[in-house]
Amino acid sequence: MTEQRLTYNYGLFILYTMKKNGNNQKITKIGFFGFGNTGRMVADEFFKDGLFDLEWVVRKTHKDTHKYATRLLGYEVDDALIYSVDEVSPVFFQNHPVDIIVDFSSAKAHYQYASAADFGIKIISAISKYTQKDLDNLKKMAEKTAVLYSPNITLGINFLLVASQILQGIAPHADIEIVEEHFRGKKEESGTAVKIAEILGLNIDKHVNSVRVGGIVGKHEIIFGLPNQTIRLIHESISRSAFGQGAIFAAKWMMNVPIGMYSMENIIVDMFKKNISVY
Amino acid sequence: MTEQRLTYNYGLFILYTMKKNGNNQKITKIGFFGFGNTGRMVADEFFKDGLFDLEWVVRKTHKDTHKYATRLLGYEVDDALIYSVDEVSPVFFQNHPVDIIVDFSSAKAHYQYASAADFGIKIISAISKYTQKDLDNLKKMAEKTAVLYSPNITLGINFLLVASQILQGIAPHADIEIVEEHFRGKKEESGTAVKIAEILGLNIDKHVNSVRVGGIVGKHEIIFGLPNQTIRLIHESISRSAFGQGAIFAAKWMMNVPIGMYSMENIIVDMFKKNISVY
Amino acid sequence: MTEQRLTYNYGLFILYTMKKNGNNQKITKIGFFGFGNTGRMVADEFFKDGLFDLEWVVRKTHKDTHKYATRLLGYEVDDALIYSVDEVSPVFFQNHPVDIIVDFSSAKAHYQYASAADFGIKIISAISKYTQKDLDNLKKMAEKTAVLYSPNITLGINFLLVASQILQGIAPHADIEIVEEHFRGKKEESGTAVKIAEILGLNIDKHVNSVRVGGIVGKHEIIFGLPNQTIRLIHESISRSAFGQGAIFAAKWMMNVPIGMYSMENIIVDMFKKNISVY
Amino acid sequence: MTEQRLTYNYGLFILYTMKKNGNNQKITKIGFFGFGNTGRMVADEFFKDGLFDLEWVVRKTHKDTHKYATRLLGYEVDDALIYSVDEVSPVFFQNHPVDIIVDFSSAKAHYQYASAADFGIKIISAISKYTQKDLDNLKKMAEKTAVLYSPNITLGINFLLVASQILQGIAPHADIEIVEEHFRGKKEESGTAVKIAEILGLNIDKHVNSVRVGGIVGKHEIIFGLPNQTIRLIHESISRSAFGQGAIFAAKWMMNVPIGMYSMENIIVDMFKKNISVY
Repeated sequence: MTEQRLTYNYGLFILYTMKKNGNNQKITKIGFFGFGNTGRMVADEFFKDGLFDLEWVVRKTHKDTHKYATRLLGYEVDDALIYSVDEVSPVFFQNHPVDIIVDFSSAKAHYQYASAADFGIKIISAISKYTQKDLDNLKKMAEKTAVLYSPNITLGINFLLVASQILQGIAPHADIEIVEEHFRGKKEESGTAVKIAEILGLNIDKHVNSVRVGGIVGKHEIIFGLPNQTIRLIHESISRSAFGQGAIFAAKWMMNVPIGMYSMENIIVDMFKKNISVY
Repeated sequence: MTEQRLTYNYGLFILYTMKKNGNNQKITKIGFFGFGNTGRMVADEFFKDGLFDLEWVVRKTHKDTHKYATRLLGYEVDDALIYSVDEVSPVFFQNHPVDIIVDFSSAKAHYQYASAADFGIKIISAISKYTQKDLDNLKKMAEKTAVLYSPNITLGINFLLVASQILQGIAPHADIEIVEEHFRGKKEESGTAVKIAEILGLNIDKHVNSVRVGGIVGKHEIIFGLPNQTIRLIHESISRSAFGQGAIFAAKWMMNVPIGMYSMENIIVDMFKKNISVY
Repeated sequence: MTEQRLTYNYGLFILYTMKKNGNNQKITKIGFFGFGNTGRMVADEFFKDGLFDLEWVVRKTHKDTHKYATRLLGYEVDDALIYSVDEVSPVFFQNHPVDIIVDFSSAKAHYQYASAADFGIKIISAISKYTQKDLDNLKKMAEKTAVLYSPNITLGINFLLVASQILQGIAPHADIEIVEEHFRGKKEESGTAVKIAEILGLNIDKHVNSVRVGGIVGKHEIIFGLPNQTIRLIHESISRSAFGQGAIFAAKWMMNVPIGMYSMENIIVDMFKKNISVY
Repeated sequence: MTEQRLTYNYGLFILYTMKKNGNNQKITKIGFFGFGNTGRMVADEFFKDGLFDLEWVVRKTHKDTHKYATRLLGYEVDDALIYSVDEVSPVFFQNHPVDIIVDFSSAKAHYQYASAADFGIKIISAISKYTQKDLDNLKKMAEKTAVLYSPNITLGINFLLVASQILQGIAPHADIEIVEEHFRGKKEESGTAVKIAEILGLNIDKHVNSVRVGGIVGKHEIIFGLPNQTIRLIHESISRSAFGQGAIFAAKWMMNVPIGMYSMENIIVDMFKKNISVY
């Protein structure tokens, strides 16, 4: 561990002690599903944020069961025990209560935490692809608690989604093309590009251009062409921690909403309305 | 004149005949101030648009007085006589009535058409820089008619203005920088970049980066930096005809508003509200 | 004509008088084929350049025959008579001698000036597409004079062509993609993008991404992706006058080369060799 | 450790065994100075590359002394012992012979390995800033062995350096501006941007534009503006591992050069000459 990390560790230790010993601020308790590459980065963001307490992590495998997630993330504190999905049952949620479950695992995990909705635990899912049957189950949960589902939970992409729809409304005759760039190994068009195309009514085969080179983390560009001017809305990902910050943004917003089904786009539309200039 | 232009001329001649001989659609009559490089391009856009009738053009000099503006624009029709500013008086507006005056001339022209406000003629001014005294005069006119003033009247730039304020509201901790690129000869920061900086509360010296090279028509980029993602809003001008399309957009909108002072930003904010997604 | 243009006209008149009355500098005489949109802009660039004398222009049609090209370009001088292609024969080149023929007309024009090669007149052709038979005829001419043929004669594109081949040599494992953007109406991939792809050994269907929106004049981007870095070489066209400046660049270089077949790429490779840093 | 990492580990273990047990290919032995954030990433690249053997690492502090660098990098093999700089003396280089010393530590480390030059050990230094006195010492070493010094040792940046000088030679009248973007915390202009400006003869205050926002790893853009076209050469860093790949590229090239002083630019100029198209 580098010195930098150690100093950081110390700061986190103070934070951690404050959280555990209780200060007056309300801390939101997070239960986490998924501990793959992205899941770990997102769990890390929640652990580091003073407003949240990472209570536990559930993994599909038995790997690392009953180890502390914080240790695996490189911190010298014992926090957030890892459970295997086999240990999860309605009783689990009673014995290990949380305010929100954040799911970065896989498409079937929601069946494991369906009962959590009965206890009013809110749900944030960032799974990439659900079947209609999966979505139906989420909707059923949304009758009992607040459920937010967004395949791309970053602030920036959702800003692009909402802003591009508005621009299309303002300039309906503009030609629109999407260029998305990702690392060599990424198969197919990015799900985000496909969603942008769908929401703008663009033929995906014709208007989504996919560039696959080297190690590009992720870039999405929406190009609006008018006869005498071009407008470009661009989002560039630097690291997958952006998902963590989006999930934190969503979690804060979720604390104050009634039961129902939501998406990151809802939050951003909400923010658009609040932040639009007044004259 | 190229063959292409001739064919085009013929199409316009048909359009022109239709407009003059009256079809059922309401045609908005435009009086135009200014016939410099940009003014000509904008006047051209109004002449070519089927919803508008370019009635006359006023120039500061005596150059080309009583020639047809359409001839100078390269069309083989006699339309839109050019008058010298000396010929303009309250009587002029009575004898040559229009619905809207569009001003692409210079900072003092508004004194010449102040009396037009008394006849309910609406005003669109795209002058770059007014003094406070100039603005006060415009405001006085706005007590009698609808006045729209926008130093940069393109759709795209005004979209950027409104969208960037919203994004700043959504991500208040984002760092923001502006990069603007223009042709070698352009002095100082672009007025548009300065306006964007002011509206976002950015120090102009620190956060506006001006690139001056070759023949770049005009590019404005607003960069929002977050720890794990970057969002860029970019506007590129292809030709100054973009001002004409913006002015036409404004003129259509102006037909339906009560007396008062407006800006292009008002229109775009209005469009944002109308086009924001509903869930 | 705007005042600006008039002042400019006056400066050109001086230049024109100097050229005609002879100063000591060697003036290269240009004969020009083609007077369409691009041809006119290129002819204009040659007329304005002090090192060249635009002697005559040949058009396919009888339109404007025996008018002065300079008048049609908006200058108040009588220069560069326009001839119909019917008037062109070997005798024509004897009676109206030039140093270089510049061809911006169409794919079959070279048959009209094939005899010019016998008089040692050099040839610059910027025709987009030739058949193999056309190319064979050019090569035959190249046995008697210097012939340069380049479908895209701009400096910038040819710089990209040469530089991208070098970068591919330096980083053979880099993934390469081409993104080209043009105005809505442009059909098919740009010829330039196809040429870049061919020279880099890229499958055109897979690696050339074509964006068609609004009024973009022309943009070509070559993206080199490595695991930890991305390199982009970008060319943006502002106006087709760039072809004129490329043709002038080529014409100057052509004055000093022996008979043979050349391309703009040859010139740029030559310039690379001359300008590479020495250590 | 994730499963992915474990599988990878296994592959490396095979590689490692092959290297240790000797196959016929010549393996270059690397001694490494520096184990900070960047140093670790570069050391990692050398360890993973089949052509190199990471022999030892020297650190300024006593931290981790006599631990295995490979363990600290997360591999389950014992390799590349860490020494404190106090243990380094001429005898050290005799007892722990290497082919090349790679230095990613700090400006004074070269005094520690000056004696290595006497044994013909080659040197690659990627230190950002040296004083003249430091450079003089390096030059003295370069009389006995091959020394390569490059403050920015990535392939891409050095490609930009050489290509931009050539483009300036081809288009001497082009206006040139540099825009560099880095994370919020980076102070001053980037050293790389300053070097590009110097080599192109540009005033740094006027022509280097520094954007500091969020978490941008590093972007350098050189803009060449001509009246009718713009050329952009852009380098984007994805991670600091790019330094490792540059250092590996340099190390391979260094194996075949005589004593003397070199830079990454030398290598790239060399590659330009080898890869320039022939006609």
